Amino acid sequence: MSERVCYLDNAATTYPKPPGVSKAMLETMKNIGASPGRGGHRMSLMAGKVLFGTRERIAGFFNVPDSRNVVFTKNATESINIALKGTLRPGDHVLASGVEHNAVMRPLEKLSRGGVPYTIVPCGRQGFLSPDDLEKAILPSTRLIVLTHASNVTGTILPVLEVGKIARSRNIIFLVDAAQTAGALRIDMEEMNIDLLACTGHKGLMGPQGTGFLAIREGIKLDTLVEGGTGSRSESIEQPDLLPDKFESGTQNTPGVSGLEAGIAFIENEGLDKIREREKALTRKLLEGLSGVKGVEIFGPLDPEKQTAVVSFRVSGKDPGETAEILDSKYGIITRVGLHCCPLAHKTIGTYPEGTIRVSPGFFTTDSEIDYFLRSVGKI
Amino acid sequence: MSERVCYLDNAATTYPKPPGVSKAMLETMKNIGASPGRGGHRMSLMAGKVLFGTRERIAGFFNVPDSRNVVFTKNATESINIALKGTLRPGDHVLASGVEHNAVMRPLEKLSRGGVPYTIVPCGRQGFLSPDDLEKAILPSTRLIVLTHASNVTGTILPVLEVGKIARSRNIIFLVDAAQTAGALRIDMEEMNIDLLACTGHKGLMGPQGTGFLAIREGIKLDTLVEGGTGSRSESIEQPDLLPDKFESGTQNTPGVSGLEAGIAFIENEGLDKIREREKALTRKLLEGLSGVKGVEIFGPLDPEKQTAVVSFRVSGKDPGETAEILDSKYGIITRVGLHCCPLAHKTIGTYPEGTIRVSPGFFTTDSEIDYFLRSVGKI
Repeated sequence: MSERVCYLDNAATTYPKPPGVSKAMLETMKNIGASPGRGGHRMSLMAGKVLFGTRERIAGFFNVPDSRNVVFTKNATESINIALKGTLRPGDHVLASGVEHNAVMRPLEKLSRGGVPYTIVPCGRQGFLSPDDLEKAILPSTRLIVLTHASNVTGTILPVLEVGKIARSRNIIFLVDAAQTAGALRIDMEEMNIDLLACTGHKGLMGPQGTGFLAIREGIKLDTLVEGGTGSRSESIEQPDLLPDKFESGTQNTPGVSGLEAGIAFIENEGLDKIREREKALTRKLLEGLSGVKGVEIFGPLDPEKQTAVVSFRVSGKDPGETAEILDSKYGIITRVGLHCCPLAHKTIGTYPEGTIRVSPGFFTTDSEIDYFLRSVGKI
Repeated sequence: MSERVCYLDNAATTYPKPPGVSKAMLETMKNIGASPGRGGHRMSLMAGKVLFGTRERIAGFFNVPDSRNVVFTKNATESINIALKGTLRPGDHVLASGVEHNAVMRPLEKLSRGGVPYTIVPCGRQGFLSPDDLEKAILPSTRLIVLTHASNVTGTILPVLEVGKIARSRNIIFLVDAAQTAGALRIDMEEMNIDLLACTGHKGLMGPQGTGFLAIREGIKLDTLVEGGTGSRSESIEQPDLLPDKFESGTQNTPGVSGLEAGIAFIENEGLDKIREREKALTRKLLEGLSGVKGVEIFGPLDPEKQTAVVSFRVSGKDPGETAEILDSKYGIITRVGLHCCPLAHKTIGTYPEGTIRVSPGFFTTDSEIDYFLRSVGKI
């Protein structure tokens, strides 16, 4: 087993985190012994401040006009489930792209058995979606369009801006799964006409696992998946209708949320553009290097401008699982192999069922790590 | 504002946590850059180990025969919602006690509008529930009984053992909300005939906020609230039926879960009986002390054997909110005032809508802190 560790699985979770993240979590654990919004004593107010401050920071970062419309969840999957199940009713129809993650496909599949059919708009072999194709697939009963902002398999960036315009003009709810792009690409809820923005905290936003949120455009009617104590309107056994409380039943992950705020603060401090430029440079280096290795087949746009820092590849004549295993055990290189919870995208790019090896550098990845990775693939 | 802090709100969240809790979280943040069960590389395996180890510890602690039947959630509220909504269908009837928290009441209220009626079995003024009363309230359509193990307002312990026998003999699903008792009282899923055990991690179990779990008896058919990527059976857009994956879609709170394991390890190391004895002693001291203060009215069993370390009281002629505010600002004593997300219990004990002041010491509370609290109440 190699002693060295070269982490290239940032599309699964970013690692390492900025030092401020653990520090914020530790401070919260040490100083705040209270549930936010549960009573007026000083510690409860401190806990409330952690949530409020993070909510404000998220609202600013994604241009959500009112931070109360940002509700915390435990991960993007929960956010997506609330968004889909809180809006769709039997008879409604849904459109989704051909590269959606199982976080979208599995709830859609379940909903379809309850009378909410969906249509997949096919993507090209590189994962691109044509807004025209999507528009043509709209039915009179289409109530919601769900789109991943970028494929978690190939990094392909989907045309959120264009689809947002279509959705708004047709009065269709537009849900964006930003698991792969929050903290990596600029996202503006207003400009992009996004009605529901589902994010995780532990990927591009550099926060800890166990955090996420759903941002809800004012006026979108959304039912709850979970009800319970909110610390507000405690006299009533009816779930309160006010945001964010309506969707934040039970004690929230205060230490996690404080870590998430530190992650976003780091990004704001460095600058999102700088992070994107760095990730583009790493992607370019990866693409150029891999295309020079004999027998390597690369999937996706092959263009850093059109993708996030995610590259999927295979070595011809080799099982992807075996290649990844050698990369890990012999070279200490951590990648992710298989279907990446996304059989649909692999069918789209023609790598189903065997999958690919996915390499995803992050802001902290060095050039020499990419060089080392490329040398190691060359040896295999 | 008093500089001193005397924390007596452990029924909301235990504070401080054992030192191992933050340490475990920090180690996880530092060393594990991976989502559990997402790929076979070393860090993913480490993350999987964190979840597996905690699952095993929970299974041992609560006597769950197979640790796969322990599924992680973000809080007890989520666990209760999965339990109720995953089992109940229109036409089913539910029984609940007269001291249930809004974490139970609000989902029940919502379910009732969907054709699942419920009946509240009244409790006495001290919060006690008669198993006979409950048995008499069973209807042919009663499919589930939900019981809090102890009231979060008065600490009153409910007859889980007796009700478990009744539920099993009548073939009714038995759901226990152990938010107030996990880590405080002994809970044995098998002996108590509990079908679904909903727990939070950040109270008696001394873990961080953002953790919780639901333990599911083998054979209980439970539908999901949330579907998504599980890292298992990735080729399918159908939610896998295997436990725990079925209920753990999306990336789990790995740092939080590692903290939870450290919390339970602390309890096992100290011994649950020792913790219970200590909390009984503190409760006795509180009850004796408060009953000696002129004008103080105490609610609940007034017997440490029959309650958890929770005491609700009022000072006659004083608004509870005002009293709590003085305790906080002048004496630095942190209590919780109001309805405690539990209007039902306050109606039961006759303190609705003004509520009570709740004092809840924890294992780390000192005798001198109780003395200080009692002196301060005396001065008010």
